[in-house]
Amino acid sequence: MTTLDDLPIRDDLRGRSPYGAPQLDVAVRLNTNENSYPVPDAVVDAIGKAVAAELRDLNRYPDRDALALRADLADYLGHGLTAGHVWAANGSNEIQQQLLQAFAGPGRVALGFTPAYSMHPLLALGTGTGWVAGRRGADFGLTVDDAVSQVRAHHPDVVFLCSPNNPTGTALDPAVIGAVLDVAPGMVVVDEAYAEFARAGTRTALELLPGHPRLVVTRTMSKAFGFAGGRLGYLVADPAVVDAVQLVRLPYHLSALTQAAARAALAHRGALLASVAAIREQRDRIVGELRRRGHRVADSDANFVLFSVDGDQAVAWRALLDAGVLVRDVGLPGWLRVTAGTPAETDAFLDAMEVLSR
Amino acid sequence: MTTLDDLPIRDDLRGRSPYGAPQLDVAVRLNTNENSYPVPDAVVDAIGKAVAAELRDLNRYPDRDALALRADLADYLGHGLTAGHVWAANGSNEIQQQLLQAFAGPGRVALGFTPAYSMHPLLALGTGTGWVAGRRGADFGLTVDDAVSQVRAHHPDVVFLCSPNNPTGTALDPAVIGAVLDVAPGMVVVDEAYAEFARAGTRTALELLPGHPRLVVTRTMSKAFGFAGGRLGYLVADPAVVDAVQLVRLPYHLSALTQAAARAALAHRGALLASVAAIREQRDRIVGELRRRGHRVADSDANFVLFSVDGDQAVAWRALLDAGVLVRDVGLPGWLRVTAGTPAETDAFLDAMEVLSR
Repeated sequence: MTTLDDLPIRDDLRGRSPYGAPQLDVAVRLNTNENSYPVPDAVVDAIGKAVAAELRDLNRYPDRDALALRADLADYLGHGLTAGHVWAANGSNEIQQQLLQAFAGPGRVALGFTPAYSMHPLLALGTGTGWVAGRRGADFGLTVDDAVSQVRAHHPDVVFLCSPNNPTGTALDPAVIGAVLDVAPGMVVVDEAYAEFARAGTRTALELLPGHPRLVVTRTMSKAFGFAGGRLGYLVADPAVVDAVQLVRLPYHLSALTQAAARAALAHRGALLASVAAIREQRDRIVGELRRRGHRVADSDANFVLFSVDGDQAVAWRALLDAGVLVRDVGLPGWLRVTAGTPAETDAFLDAMEVLSR
Repeated sequence: MTTLDDLPIRDDLRGRSPYGAPQLDVAVRLNTNENSYPVPDAVVDAIGKAVAAELRDLNRYPDRDALALRADLADYLGHGLTAGHVWAANGSNEIQQQLLQAFAGPGRVALGFTPAYSMHPLLALGTGTGWVAGRRGADFGLTVDDAVSQVRAHHPDVVFLCSPNNPTGTALDPAVIGAVLDVAPGMVVVDEAYAEFARAGTRTALELLPGHPRLVVTRTMSKAFGFAGGRLGYLVADPAVVDAVQLVRLPYHLSALTQAAARAALAHRGALLASVAAIREQRDRIVGELRRRGHRVADSDANFVLFSVDGDQAVAWRALLDAGVLVRDVGLPGWLRVTAGTPAETDAFLDAMEVLSR
């Protein structure tokens, strides 16, 4: 039998495994930061009708530029943005891959501040981009001085910032983004996948777009919109950045069904985003309760919580799984990540956590 | 205003334009090899129901491995294939990009035989892969000797073969594929996007898969299935190749809607593929009529026809457009490509062609 080792794959891929959390059949799945609330019936009907209207003409290629969807995304964001500032793809992973293809790639370097979204270095690998794993403080924080000195040291073509950061959950001080923009020689990508869950008063990098053509903010409909299965990520930037990614995007990358479904979801954003307040409440409940029980817990502006456990986190992860709750071991010694979902899921998680103290 | 030139894009992208035929609002569009037949009502209903069943749970990520869809694709193909031999993505462009990411990329080289599918060199560019534009004979043919000598000369990590070839339309002699497999040091990708339209007796490279773990056959549902708007391409190969592309695929790249819609289309393939015979008939009619009128015409196993025109093909392209028929100028001096669609579209095209002889 032929195995992967017998094939002429790239040397830098040898010995690697595909990215992805285990997809296990567990009662309470709090490991991939999905939105736990199903799509409301009224929105199911609206998306169903919008998709059905596309089906007869599926023999035709979709709008290659997804202009109507991009206009709807701009309208949702506000901040005076238009379709020209927005670009959409099959998830923000594809958006970030396109950014690396346009602005990084062979002979160029991307810098991220670890721990952050673990796909960033894998996207660098997949695009032939050199990767520099920058440092965060002991508390997972990132100060202006620390960020600026690392950007100055590495001259990255692309800097990834993550706000709220995954897996820690904490939003970044806008002063850090501004300082990085001042010194970075290339593009600065702020991954705001979880922006809608931020605590009151948290600033978005969208505010910094005017006058910063090398700033790119990426977003997704997977989390707050509960649209993970629909696959819709997007970027917001100067229109010249949208011109740049169009040089590397695959033609007709976004299906007619995706465009129609996402537009219908945006049209019903009130109903979909109603879950955000409920999830924030559970997030704050988890943070408060775990702190009360003596865990260290990172401040969270996201729909998940990073918390400390005694001893080996892999052992704790397994104990929680045995208790029926799947959380995420992100490979940080002594820490685990849990998604904030429904009140019942929080109950189950907090109950399961008691097994750890036995 | 910031322009593309002001941004730090890759040097090899400077001065380029996005790939894609003009999307013009013309009565008769025969420029992108779409299937001219809309999806039949019964299939519209079936796809609509299949997609609707996914919508409530769109808050959850899709099956990352798309196993059920891959099993359905294998069942469609026959040849003893299983889900393990198949991998699916958002169009065969994404499939081929993944193949280059896994087997080519920086420091490696891909070889194609020009003219062929014009995305192949662009996919090489986007993945940092060196590109060698191999030659075809004066009649656009590719002989065993010619193919073997070019593979020997360039030691490519990936060879692209295209059968039926786009834009010429002619299927490749399987002896050429076999000979290339014998001498190629790396992977051999046979792009069979138009396979279902081939003339009777044409062989598919699927027959060569047993014993050839470095052979990859790529297919699409865009053409014969009339599913261009649904975006579903796939590859067929040794299961080790599927393992390899999983190292570079974006997690959850294929939406739940795409998976459900494609499965429903495959379940109703009888109704969808009914258009293939009608399109072949128009294809043969165009070939016969243009030859009767004195044009040189490449043999076609696809849903399009490459034909010669007098003088500058760009002038002829414009004259046809002015007559209400959009065809494709693929940049071959003295040649144009037309998609075979409905009988009425053939009538319109053949009528419009008369303006060229005036």
